[in-house]
Amino acid sequence: MKKFMNAVDTVLTESLDGFVAAHADILALGDEHKFVRRRTLRPGKVALISGGGSGHEPLHAGFVGHGMLDAACPGQVFTSPTPDQMLAATQAVDSGAGCLFIVKNYEGDVMNFDMAAEMSDGVLRVVTNDDVAVENSSYTTGRRGVAGTLVVEKIVGAAAEHGLALPVLKALGERVNAATRSMGVALTSGTVPAAGKPTFDIGDGEMEFGVGIHGEPGRRRDTLKSADAIAEEICASILGDLGDKAKGPALLFVNGFGGTPLMELYLMYNSARRILEKRGVTIVRSLVGSYVTSLDMAGCSITLTMLDDEMTGWWDAPVHTAALRWGM
Amino acid sequence: MKKFMNAVDTVLTESLDGFVAAHADILALGDEHKFVRRRTLRPGKVALISGGGSGHEPLHAGFVGHGMLDAACPGQVFTSPTPDQMLAATQAVDSGAGCLFIVKNYEGDVMNFDMAAEMSDGVLRVVTNDDVAVENSSYTTGRRGVAGTLVVEKIVGAAAEHGLALPVLKALGERVNAATRSMGVALTSGTVPAAGKPTFDIGDGEMEFGVGIHGEPGRRRDTLKSADAIAEEICASILGDLGDKAKGPALLFVNGFGGTPLMELYLMYNSARRILEKRGVTIVRSLVGSYVTSLDMAGCSITLTMLDDEMTGWWDAPVHTAALRWGM
Repeated sequence: MKKFMNAVDTVLTESLDGFVAAHADILALGDEHKFVRRRTLRPGKVALISGGGSGHEPLHAGFVGHGMLDAACPGQVFTSPTPDQMLAATQAVDSGAGCLFIVKNYEGDVMNFDMAAEMSDGVLRVVTNDDVAVENSSYTTGRRGVAGTLVVEKIVGAAAEHGLALPVLKALGERVNAATRSMGVALTSGTVPAAGKPTFDIGDGEMEFGVGIHGEPGRRRDTLKSADAIAEEICASILGDLGDKAKGPALLFVNGFGGTPLMELYLMYNSARRILEKRGVTIVRSLVGSYVTSLDMAGCSITLTMLDDEMTGWWDAPVHTAALRWGM
Repeated sequence: MKKFMNAVDTVLTESLDGFVAAHADILALGDEHKFVRRRTLRPGKVALISGGGSGHEPLHAGFVGHGMLDAACPGQVFTSPTPDQMLAATQAVDSGAGCLFIVKNYEGDVMNFDMAAEMSDGVLRVVTNDDVAVENSSYTTGRRGVAGTLVVEKIVGAAAEHGLALPVLKALGERVNAATRSMGVALTSGTVPAAGKPTFDIGDGEMEFGVGIHGEPGRRRDTLKSADAIAEEICASILGDLGDKAKGPALLFVNGFGGTPLMELYLMYNSARRILEKRGVTIVRSLVGSYVTSLDMAGCSITLTMLDDEMTGWWDAPVHTAALRWGM
């Protein structure tokens, strides 16, 4: 295992300390590293809280700030945060207008966020499940929540900043999730610090097609194909799953898994965009970068969100977080 | 070689096509992929142009936009752009107030930018050489220009946006470069697409200490140390080189080389910050991320810029590029 670290036990806390110190203008750290929150809260606004296992940085703490989340709860690497983390975060950032939990669909996450919701008043939740690769997986009943979660957090975050009410935000989050599909491919495995070796073995000329963001198996192991061939199959899967919805304006998000450089991500974006535009999808908004990662895994995912005017407006609204910034 | 690509010959052009399509709101592509420029120029402003071999993305094209560069010239991977690229970029973006070339200190880059400058009127240059690791290197006489180049581009870019004159901007760029030091360490080698195999061999438990951004040899091959030990030695080298200047407010920039995830970069930031603050440096501004990369090389560099009030003001000024955004 080759990582910049001091000790396996302190990887997460040291990284969080650095993260909050580097962004002290907008962020603060909860006691015992239970959560990362906005430094300045906005009274009367519904609080948005997300979280999940660490190792997917900048998701979720990198999206805490104006126009997105109010707090994020980081679990240990690839391990759900515990209910007391979400409870502490809720107490810290709920200003009376209620809380919306945004939860990726993994059994541990859903269970622990639900337990925290039961212990609080005025909490609703949105569960994301944008990964079309497989039904059910290592840690999931149903579909996995992956990179599309960023899109839900951005759009609902903007609407929350604007003052929309809790049930409206929940409905909006579910609408964005329903308009969003993702699928990924891995070229190498990431390495969990506590494991000390790659999560899965993969040959020199192989890819894991439909991989999850914890290195869960996808649809199949295959020989590595060209960027165009990979983009073609992912886009066909996404469009097929969207069915009649797959026309008109869309957001195309090409996401790196942590070990893949920007040069390759923009090349994949170029392939995917060309393919999608030939099939009647108009790419009106774009995002390219490593935002929902799997430690040092090389690979990428493609996310498509079919946009309406309201969603486009919230996407464009000002955001100022550690990892996503525009308009302010 | 495991990369998202279609053919070795088209990696760069396909990636640039995707890059400019994804950021069409702010960027345009020059004929024959010679340069990336701002979509909208600002008349009367000194034009800032940079460039260099590709493979360091988002440097430089990711820093074209309001508050930073007017154009960037991408060479083939790890290969200097040709003088006709800089000439074409100059003709496209010089609005009459002159041009400043910002050039990393590599022999090919300096020669080719100088040739282009000789063929144009009203061009001055700043050469960056912030890497303290070694004197002279594979492609360099003197010190290498590395991640500190971003700091020069940001600060001079803000001053240019504000309307400062060409000689003043050149002097400012040289002052920022003189206040900036960097050093890096590699855990793995990157792979140049045309080579098809890693640039250098490195053992499972080894690091290249003082590595260059093309995988050039550094000070020594060593066993992989803890994050604290690596940060300690890099910071000591930087502070030693800065001498009496190494006190007071500073910008700390921890840069990933492309294959290292954010979690590790923030952990290194945490180590470096603690060490520097103990030695009388006050970290007042921070940047953490993969901004000056070496393809898929795992590793990072630490850059320190000693700030005065003017430089801090320009650093804080609004910027809106593909890769760096705040204040607008």
